[in-house]
Amino acid sequence: MHVTEMLDTNPGKKIFASEPLSQCIEACFDCAQTCSACADSCLGEPKLDMLRRCIRLDQDCADICLATGKVLSRQQLADVRVVRSLLEACLCACAAAGDECAHHASHHEHCRICTESCRRCARACRDAIAALGAPAGTTH
Amino acid sequence: MHVTEMLDTNPGKKIFASEPLSQCIEACFDCAQTCSACADSCLGEPKLDMLRRCIRLDQDCADICLATGKVLSRQQLADVRVVRSLLEACLCACAAAGDECAHHASHHEHCRICTESCRRCARACRDAIAALGAPAGTTH
Amino acid sequence: MHVTEMLDTNPGKKIFASEPLSQCIEACFDCAQTCSACADSCLGEPKLDMLRRCIRLDQDCADICLATGKVLSRQQLADVRVVRSLLEACLCACAAAGDECAHHASHHEHCRICTESCRRCARACRDAIAALGAPAGTTH
Amino acid sequence: MHVTEMLDTNPGKKIFASEPLSQCIEACFDCAQTCSACADSCLGEPKLDMLRRCIRLDQDCADICLATGKVLSRQQLADVRVVRSLLEACLCACAAAGDECAHHASHHEHCRICTESCRRCARACRDAIAALGAPAGTTH
Repeated sequence: MHVTEMLDTNPGKKIFASEPLSQCIEACFDCAQTCSACADSCLGEPKLDMLRRCIRLDQDCADICLATGKVLSRQQLADVRVVRSLLEACLCACAAAGDECAHHASHHEHCRICTESCRRCARACRDAIAALGAPAGTTH
Repeated sequence: MHVTEMLDTNPGKKIFASEPLSQCIEACFDCAQTCSACADSCLGEPKLDMLRRCIRLDQDCADICLATGKVLSRQQLADVRVVRSLLEACLCACAAAGDECAHHASHHEHCRICTESCRRCARACRDAIAALGAPAGTTH
Repeated sequence: MHVTEMLDTNPGKKIFASEPLSQCIEACFDCAQTCSACADSCLGEPKLDMLRRCIRLDQDCADICLATGKVLSRQQLADVRVVRSLLEACLCACAAAGDECAHHASHHEHCRICTESCRRCARACRDAIAALGAPAGTTH
Repeated sequence: MHVTEMLDTNPGKKIFASEPLSQCIEACFDCAQTCSACADSCLGEPKLDMLRRCIRLDQDCADICLATGKVLSRQQLADVRVVRSLLEACLCACAAAGDECAHHASHHEHCRICTESCRRCARACRDAIAALGAPAGTTH
């Protein structure tokens, strides 16, 4: 991906430091792809019945990660509260999908890889929230 | 749209009451369309320079509303924390885009309509959050 | 939805006539919502095994309809070939999902409604392609 | 990204050969990110007026690449005509955005990188279409 190069050539002021930002953007697109593929792999398993919740949470996670990846790719005139609340939703979706996939990781290799991808994205969201700083109006 | 019919025929348990749910789904898709169209209309205005922030926030709002509309369209085995945090991000995005559009509403009819659509979606998200109930672990 | 109002207030030249355009935009967002909900309803059915292809094609159709609805919502400086080829992909996705849902329509009310929504969107795409006119370079 | 690992662990039959498939999926997500970032960078340039068409086509390309990346990430029970028509739309969108960005590549580094990303994705779509084989009903 060209995430860092695109950040470096953007004429706007970064919404937060370049490194946690580029890592979070990459993790979001990776997690969206992995979750889409994992939901589809689950759909092809013989014991599909046990994987309903995994399919559900993977789909939610893919949708939220894509929205987050797109919003973070923009540097112009952001609203910090929108960015922070979306990062929190993304962290929550990655934690939920990652925990569910972890239950199936010993039976399905796609769930094991997806767990990793979700956890990496959850960490990247947490680091991004920290890099954004405390919410306005918070006592320090 | 077929939102209510699709909710009524879903074999799953609704994540919350049907009425605030169907209104929120419809409002999300409507707001996503309106914000996409408003960002594009802004791009065609002669005084484009003053509309940069409007384009930015409209795009964020469209992306977040679409993710929210898709997640709320699913009733199977939801994670309530994911749904609640996404509704909060969507409320925040609609408030930000609606407030920015309101500044241009007297000059641009597309911004006036978009303000309305954002505010309706913000209200629908607030009602949906209320219908979801208090977060687990909260003292009552 | 505010599709027609947003088209009427866009400062750009419509990519094609307003009526087939607004009908196609509305049909795309409706079909995306219906297909997302139908895939989820299928996931909750006891005889899930027979609905794998329905879930697959509903997901594809939802993704393609959303991209089409967003692209058609923009009027500024379009590339007509991009619009036409996307409408053709959308028509194809709606036909495939609609045909698959039709096989399950007598057993599952959500598939019956989804068949209708897919067919309406396929028709709207066909009318939109006709309204766009013949491809440049075609002999008449 | 985990594209190849996810393809290798999918229980379904690949829609076409793994190598052009994984390259196309990666190129689609990369191009979606690059185009989202380029549209945003254009929005921050002082001479915004000349970049209207670039912003428009970048947005279309991002939306179509994301839909294509998601559809290609699924291997279960695909409809080959849907996949082919979507690849053709994606190729067309990448060609249009890449050509427009190329006009600004000497002035804006983000447009130069975006041109590359669009062209790589257009090539990957062309290779994927070739790997899919001739349409059914075609004389050989």
